[in-house]
Amino acid sequence: MSLTDAPDEQREADEAAGETDDEGGKLVGQGIDRREDAALLTGRATFTDDADAPRVAHLAFVRSEEAHADVEAVDTAAAEALDGVLAAYTWADVEASDAPGVLPISAEALDCDPPGHPVLARERVRYHGQPVAAVVAEDRYTARDGVEAVEVSYDPRPAVVDPVEARGADAPTLFEGAPDNVAVTTDLGDEAATDAAFAAADRTVEVKLENNRLIASALEPRAALAEYDAGSDELTVTMTSQSPHGHRRKLSETLGLPERSIRVVAPSVGGGFGHKGHHHPGEAAAAWAARRLGRPVKWTATRSGNYLAGAHGRDHRTTAKIAVDDDGTIRGLRADTDAGVGGYGLGGGASLPGWYGSLLSSEYAVDAVHCRTRSVFTTTAPVHSYRGAGRPEAIYVTERLVDAAAREVGMDPAELRRRNLIDPDAFPYETPTGATYDSGDYEPALDVALEAVDYEAVKAAPDRDDDGRYRGVGLACMVESTGSGFETGLVRAHPDGTVTVYAGTHSHGQGHGTTYAQIVADELGVPYDDIEVAEGDTERVPTGTGTFGSRSTVVGGNAVAESAADVREKATRIAAHRLDADPADVTLADGTFSAPDGSAVGFADVAAAAHGGDRPAGMPPGLEATTAYESEATAYSFGTHAVEVRVDADTGEVDVETYVAVDDCGERVNPTILDGQVHGGVAQGVGQARSEHAVYGDDGELLTGSMDRYALPRAASVPHVETRATVTPSPHNDLGVKGIGEAGTIAAPPAVVNAVLDALEPLGVDSVDMPLTDERVWRAIHGEPGR
Amino acid sequence: MSLTDAPDEQREADEAAGETDDEGGKLVGQGIDRREDAALLTGRATFTDDADAPRVAHLAFVRSEEAHADVEAVDTAAAEALDGVLAAYTWADVEASDAPGVLPISAEALDCDPPGHPVLARERVRYHGQPVAAVVAEDRYTARDGVEAVEVSYDPRPAVVDPVEARGADAPTLFEGAPDNVAVTTDLGDEAATDAAFAAADRTVEVKLENNRLIASALEPRAALAEYDAGSDELTVTMTSQSPHGHRRKLSETLGLPERSIRVVAPSVGGGFGHKGHHHPGEAAAAWAARRLGRPVKWTATRSGNYLAGAHGRDHRTTAKIAVDDDGTIRGLRADTDAGVGGYGLGGGASLPGWYGSLLSSEYAVDAVHCRTRSVFTTTAPVHSYRGAGRPEAIYVTERLVDAAAREVGMDPAELRRRNLIDPDAFPYETPTGATYDSGDYEPALDVALEAVDYEAVKAAPDRDDDGRYRGVGLACMVESTGSGFETGLVRAHPDGTVTVYAGTHSHGQGHGTTYAQIVADELGVPYDDIEVAEGDTERVPTGTGTFGSRSTVVGGNAVAESAADVREKATRIAAHRLDADPADVTLADGTFSAPDGSAVGFADVAAAAHGGDRPAGMPPGLEATTAYESEATAYSFGTHAVEVRVDADTGEVDVETYVAVDDCGERVNPTILDGQVHGGVAQGVGQARSEHAVYGDDGELLTGSMDRYALPRAASVPHVETRATVTPSPHNDLGVKGIGEAGTIAAPPAVVNAVLDALEPLGVDSVDMPLTDERVWRAIHGEPGR
Repeated sequence: MSLTDAPDEQREADEAAGETDDEGGKLVGQGIDRREDAALLTGRATFTDDADAPRVAHLAFVRSEEAHADVEAVDTAAAEALDGVLAAYTWADVEASDAPGVLPISAEALDCDPPGHPVLARERVRYHGQPVAAVVAEDRYTARDGVEAVEVSYDPRPAVVDPVEARGADAPTLFEGAPDNVAVTTDLGDEAATDAAFAAADRTVEVKLENNRLIASALEPRAALAEYDAGSDELTVTMTSQSPHGHRRKLSETLGLPERSIRVVAPSVGGGFGHKGHHHPGEAAAAWAARRLGRPVKWTATRSGNYLAGAHGRDHRTTAKIAVDDDGTIRGLRADTDAGVGGYGLGGGASLPGWYGSLLSSEYAVDAVHCRTRSVFTTTAPVHSYRGAGRPEAIYVTERLVDAAAREVGMDPAELRRRNLIDPDAFPYETPTGATYDSGDYEPALDVALEAVDYEAVKAAPDRDDDGRYRGVGLACMVESTGSGFETGLVRAHPDGTVTVYAGTHSHGQGHGTTYAQIVADELGVPYDDIEVAEGDTERVPTGTGTFGSRSTVVGGNAVAESAADVREKATRIAAHRLDADPADVTLADGTFSAPDGSAVGFADVAAAAHGGDRPAGMPPGLEATTAYESEATAYSFGTHAVEVRVDADTGEVDVETYVAVDDCGERVNPTILDGQVHGGVAQGVGQARSEHAVYGDDGELLTGSMDRYALPRAASVPHVETRATVTPSPHNDLGVKGIGEAGTIAAPPAVVNAVLDALEPLGVDSVDMPLTDERVWRAIHGEPGR
Repeated sequence: MSLTDAPDEQREADEAAGETDDEGGKLVGQGIDRREDAALLTGRATFTDDADAPRVAHLAFVRSEEAHADVEAVDTAAAEALDGVLAAYTWADVEASDAPGVLPISAEALDCDPPGHPVLARERVRYHGQPVAAVVAEDRYTARDGVEAVEVSYDPRPAVVDPVEARGADAPTLFEGAPDNVAVTTDLGDEAATDAAFAAADRTVEVKLENNRLIASALEPRAALAEYDAGSDELTVTMTSQSPHGHRRKLSETLGLPERSIRVVAPSVGGGFGHKGHHHPGEAAAAWAARRLGRPVKWTATRSGNYLAGAHGRDHRTTAKIAVDDDGTIRGLRADTDAGVGGYGLGGGASLPGWYGSLLSSEYAVDAVHCRTRSVFTTTAPVHSYRGAGRPEAIYVTERLVDAAAREVGMDPAELRRRNLIDPDAFPYETPTGATYDSGDYEPALDVALEAVDYEAVKAAPDRDDDGRYRGVGLACMVESTGSGFETGLVRAHPDGTVTVYAGTHSHGQGHGTTYAQIVADELGVPYDDIEVAEGDTERVPTGTGTFGSRSTVVGGNAVAESAADVREKATRIAAHRLDADPADVTLADGTFSAPDGSAVGFADVAAAAHGGDRPAGMPPGLEATTAYESEATAYSFGTHAVEVRVDADTGEVDVETYVAVDDCGERVNPTILDGQVHGGVAQGVGQARSEHAVYGDDGELLTGSMDRYALPRAASVPHVETRATVTPSPHNDLGVKGIGEAGTIAAPPAVVNAVLDALEPLGVDSVDMPLTDERVWRAIHGEPGR
């Protein structure tokens, strides 16, 4: 563990280091500006909706106005009669085609075998906003007119939106094979051992928690432009994707086409947060229609369409308990969760909630943990991974429990945390719910956070400040699993010595164009400006997984680093051949190979030779390397966020005075980008804690289907975030990196809620559910039922 | 050597073999239909001019009306004033930009250092049709109107179109550094040894030959669509290219952009014949204008533009001699050639003629050969490689000499050839001019040809047939160097088990989509229909060289074969892991792996496992392999073409009665496609022999700048071609293949001319230059000067 400077000093240090480039300074570790930003900030980046094609037609969906109903009839005649409408499709059209037309579902991980999500509704709709028909027209306005002209008659069924209620005896059943609407029940940890630990402990505390349902609110809605070339039988789908190869696979299944015939291209993507990694009806319908019509078809979700159709995130109802001894030792943790997964399983979405318990013990050395999760179908939009994807749900439970335990035993929450931290010598550390942490040194991060938030002073201060507002401080320690699966990194030197780096990840805000170029510049020894990073095209990138789960720098970064080292090795052998030197004696820096005798040859000359010139005998031509990098094991980031708040008891208004984020993601490739990741994550985490909430009416209508009703955090509600870092490298990869993309969304909700509950303790408030709107806080203070 | 059946029987045998697929029959060797043809024949293939882009603008050239002149002024004002004209550019605009704007020239191979070809004329024009200005407009019609409105004033200089005249003292000089207009003089072989051999021989015979200047007449003219993305700084040039990576490199130099920023895409290409491998002003101007205007720019050559601006082919003037003993033994060969290279060197075009002599001894065991070639600038369109690229020029000289020698010593031409053939045991065989033949067995091919043309019977028949036409039979033995350089083959299995094969070659009629799939299906063991071949995109294909010089099956075919074997090896290890068997015991056929115990797993399951599933420990994910294949040495195809003709002495009309092509290209991947290559090559070779001729007036005006004046062969003038084959595998590559793409253009001209001279021997005609138009033949018969 080493401690970095405060961010401003860090940045100055980075910049100073940047000036030493010419002296061979490493680029990794420098907070250089993102090269992506020039195009983004000047409006020159190309997003999917900017993509255009001659003769393009536009598709719009007729979406279900019912949450749950049998579809009696869909009359498209009036729509088809409109001037400019090319076609209006229903399930009957899909069924009559050669395409299965159903989004694949990972049913093998479920206790039942529900059908997948049909591209267009098949007999029945199961959520408000489900696509029922699709209208394709010469322009998007006519397509909307066509949508208005389609008549759908429904025979309504009862809706159920709450996952707990959906398990009730009176609840309507969504799928025959799951009469209680439970898709799967997942147990993690040893239930009997946990029972015993609870029985033996001095005290137990229970909390009931709701992890509020959220909507991924990327500025850019989902979109796709599908182009079918009949001559080559190739389908190109330009789309908003975090995972082009994943989408190709899924489109292949939905459309019934071989993967070799499908190309997925993801241009600039305006935010993902998970939902652009999932497969939705939109891209499938556009692709299907493009093949059918023989014209390019574009679909761009409206904001409300994007909100209605998900995928949404979170939506957990949890009863959780902690067993603690009087000395503050945590003896056991247990949680029982109903997680709503919506009207259809979307890929692995229905089984995803079951895994959240694997992080339940977080940074704490707890021997007995048990988590039972039921994934429950409800007549709502599908739920799937949303930034954090189970980690925020777990850490929210843990950190709420730890504060409750501290209160129960009368111990300072920081002290109780410190007492239970996993010892730095205990790594690799296996948790009772199946995680194996690679490395960690938790106490320094806690200390930095406490110092930065001036924890002792806040605790020692009067309950109320000079304005009468209640003062509170809250902590959240957390662990984040990062960097799973495999990723492809291809480093290709062109004959002129410039380099393109291809990776199977796809940056949608993460800045891979900058960080990968930094890594490759260091590993390869060529100037940063000669290196371009290409992602987002299944035909350019060999294969790949995508960007989600805080994985890109870990698996993608190490993949490109290995490939760069391989290219350097081959290039060095060519250079040595030309310099008549031993390869071991030849060095490469700033694009020039040097031999001990002072002779030198440029990387461009070597690259040209590699493509058909003078090379060592027997060496094949070309100058590239591909690495399919699979991390040995998951890398676990960690950290502590600390928040100081003020609460106005008369209005319920919460002010965040100080927000300190101390994150440890191992070696830091680009501190500026890391800060940006934390800032963005905290903004989203604060959004969940304070305002965001996807609300359904009892009839299954989404009441927050637009940006004016779904309360995203605004500039005034996002606090200034002070970022700090400790550095505990991962032993599992050569770069020593761990992911950080989701840290803010994990730590911010419990930290903010704990701070507010700390502030309200003098008022006897010990529980309030997110989002902590003024009204909810006021009601908690005044003992009125929450809303 | 093995002898294949006659073609019809062969095809039947192939088809029969095709039906045995299910029994594991090899696809290589079967004459299955080209899968490319469905799209081509139904008009669904996409050519460059079919490519469209939103807001596309169109570029047209103002071409020089002078062959040689100083450009005094270019007035674009009237053009720019036209409604719809976006810009009119001259060299001044290019010069003021960041682009060099000059097509690169391989000056290191020259005796002088001339400047390259400017994209737009710089002070001076050096051939009729050279681009002087470019007009870009909203549509191509307005662009043409703009071209008409541009006023150019010239100060004419004298033209010189004949390469022999261009070396004369009175000839105008094109470039300062080459006062005699000679770009380079190349000597091959040992001049002194050849002098001695000639002195010692019983007889010597001299012939003066013109190898007529030709124009590559692809049905599709050259074209380019350039799209510049300012956000990513990437330039995509969709263009008619035989060599996408080669064009990327050249565009990089002309535009001054790094290769990483340029993508060249070649869709379906409607014939190449060499000139779509060269870099011309058109694509460079479109790319330059697209960056400048910020709009896509398309340029499609008019037919006359394509004809005016080249690259043209051939244009040799040769004095050649053969030394022969009375017994028919050839003692020596020598040739002295002036080759016109046009007004500018285009890439390596100016040095290319020098290498033609390397094949001068052809199939014959001749110890003394000398060839001197002067590459001479003339005020004509640039000359570069045209199907055959030196090989037709060489074999034409050799085969004309051999017939002249036979006449001189009074020996049957077939017998004289047979007597001098290189012995089949003499391989590898080094020629005096630097070629090393890999394998050969020449006599059987000669025998098959003689038998098929019924040589003895024709020779024994009366001079004139019943219609009074003179009867003649002609032979051409030939050797063709094939498969040089390196090529990239990438075989990628997708997670669903379908396969895409990427190669750096680019098929423009050669049928790689079929032949590569045959090769990969055999090597990999998956069904042919699951395999797609992708070429023609520098971002899809790792790197590559291109399709020209009869190279694709040799280097590209072996590259994809090696990669397929590598993929099979990895897939077999995964299958063995899943089947709990030893990889050595696991077999793969028709997409199924089988273990000795009868257990089996499908290729698709293995491919899925390779992408993130259950694999042997430590095996990296992914299922692909890339081979950069460089042939050990050139593979030399060979064969004999035999022609029987009738000549009407009253009209000069030549009828080809019988055309037999016996070609040996080693192992035969697809006999149907091989037949097609021979048919097409013979059509072009007969075109050169009988009608095609690029003719310049003395003032440098191209008189044959359109299809109605440049006489391509028509259906009636192309004979039925009877194809036969012998099979002498190349020892230098695993597939045992050699190229065949140019065989017809090499053998047909001398075979046809020799047959006509044989027919005219009774009339005392011993020489006539191509093309053998009726008029030329009539004049030769009647002793009038040729035209």
